Amino acid sequence: MREINSSDNRIIRQAASLAEKKYRDALGMYLIEGPNFIRDAMDLGGRLRFIFIKAGTLTREAEEIKSLAEERGTAVISLSGTAFDRISATETSQGMTAVAEKRLWTEDEFFGREGGCVLVLDRIQDPGNLGTMLRTALAMGFSGVLLLKGCCDVYGPKTVRAAAGSLFRLPVLFSQGPEEAAELLKSRGKRLYAAVMRGGTPCFEAELSKNAAVIVGNEGSGICEELLSQSEGLTIPMDGGSESLNAGLAAGIIMYESRRQRLCL
Amino acid sequence: MREINSSDNRIIRQAASLAEKKYRDALGMYLIEGPNFIRDAMDLGGRLRFIFIKAGTLTREAEEIKSLAEERGTAVISLSGTAFDRISATETSQGMTAVAEKRLWTEDEFFGREGGCVLVLDRIQDPGNLGTMLRTALAMGFSGVLLLKGCCDVYGPKTVRAAAGSLFRLPVLFSQGPEEAAELLKSRGKRLYAAVMRGGTPCFEAELSKNAAVIVGNEGSGICEELLSQSEGLTIPMDGGSESLNAGLAAGIIMYESRRQRLCL
Repeated sequence: MREINSSDNRIIRQAASLAEKKYRDALGMYLIEGPNFIRDAMDLGGRLRFIFIKAGTLTREAEEIKSLAEERGTAVISLSGTAFDRISATETSQGMTAVAEKRLWTEDEFFGREGGCVLVLDRIQDPGNLGTMLRTALAMGFSGVLLLKGCCDVYGPKTVRAAAGSLFRLPVLFSQGPEEAAELLKSRGKRLYAAVMRGGTPCFEAELSKNAAVIVGNEGSGICEELLSQSEGLTIPMDGGSESLNAGLAAGIIMYESRRQRLCL
Repeated sequence: MREINSSDNRIIRQAASLAEKKYRDALGMYLIEGPNFIRDAMDLGGRLRFIFIKAGTLTREAEEIKSLAEERGTAVISLSGTAFDRISATETSQGMTAVAEKRLWTEDEFFGREGGCVLVLDRIQDPGNLGTMLRTALAMGFSGVLLLKGCCDVYGPKTVRAAAGSLFRLPVLFSQGPEEAAELLKSRGKRLYAAVMRGGTPCFEAELSKNAAVIVGNEGSGICEELLSQSEGLTIPMDGGSESLNAGLAAGIIMYESRRQRLCL
């Protein structure tokens, strides 16, 4: 196993730079932390550039990952404590961190499943919420998540953690603006539904079993006017006096409703 | 308005002690932070012992709360910066913090609604998850939440924040152990359902519209054996390969399903 001891090594500097979105964007890479995640990434076809193991923490789990990675030609590097901590100083890592390549999905891959439903996110700001929505979208059989400009970064550490492996399997697509997104979705035969607090069709009365594009908006200000005006409103009927649900939960409930309709057809 | 400038004043020391669960338990009080929350508490019948305003931050909103509180005989106290910061050093407070009295609900209040459904929580450890579940239980028309020993504290600051006012209206009850809880629920005519990852009845095929007691377990280890053995398993059908959902989300989806069944009868 190759060793790096200097925290000023080029590979270390590059990996450490991935803490910032601008470098993740420029390099097309991001960090995943901890042996469980790294294992999931390998099982789910995630492409790993490097796996870093902190010297002195070569557990049995790490040994297994190392063998598997070496079979596949992924570089496994042993780092000194200082070098490792420059990349990953959190407890989450348990002495193991990897550099993953972002997977870019084409529009055809994104819309590949006939009748598939998609989640559309407008300026979601909370990284944990975003990750939870990705994880739930996969579990509820949605075929992809379209992110409008203004969402927080899908590849930030909190989002990656909350997404729990879904990033390796769920197609994600990025859109510049709401008009462009609406046009694309309609051209692909999707019906636009906007999740709104009140006044929309009760979600169990809307036809969500196929070709639904469910839009969820910013935690504070909701969905932008451009998308609202082109969508049918969708409301989760709440008991009197309740103000709202957490955005991640509202998205999860509507995606569940869509799945229920598919399974109960 | 009364003023306190010394951070060593007895009232300040007592309020500051509420950061710890043992003092919240002993005093039967807890802290709520920020003008929005304090306003909600007053609107929703929460009983406030003191409202503290940091000297120099008397906004219009704070003025309104002050007048309202004084009409109702709640003590409003102006604190020096040091005294205020001893109680509440977070940004969430926006210069305003209150001491609220825990509301104790009787079993008869808890089970007062005929046919009502309840959420039962077994060793939920994440304060944010717990707060979200309380908020969602209220929104989905559940009549109460029963907390088994081993859940994190309902009155801790993160839970209070995530619960977003539901604590003032939603009956909560505490149970020593699983046997005691199961016995109580059955004696009140509730059917026990255990949320399990796999192998249970699909939640949309179970009868959840009334008298359901939905049990959600610890984020890592799930529901204890004593409760599992007395319950019908309930599963949210997930798409192939998905491992699990976040516990708060799973609870939210099942409570939504229960509400949908009531509304679609």
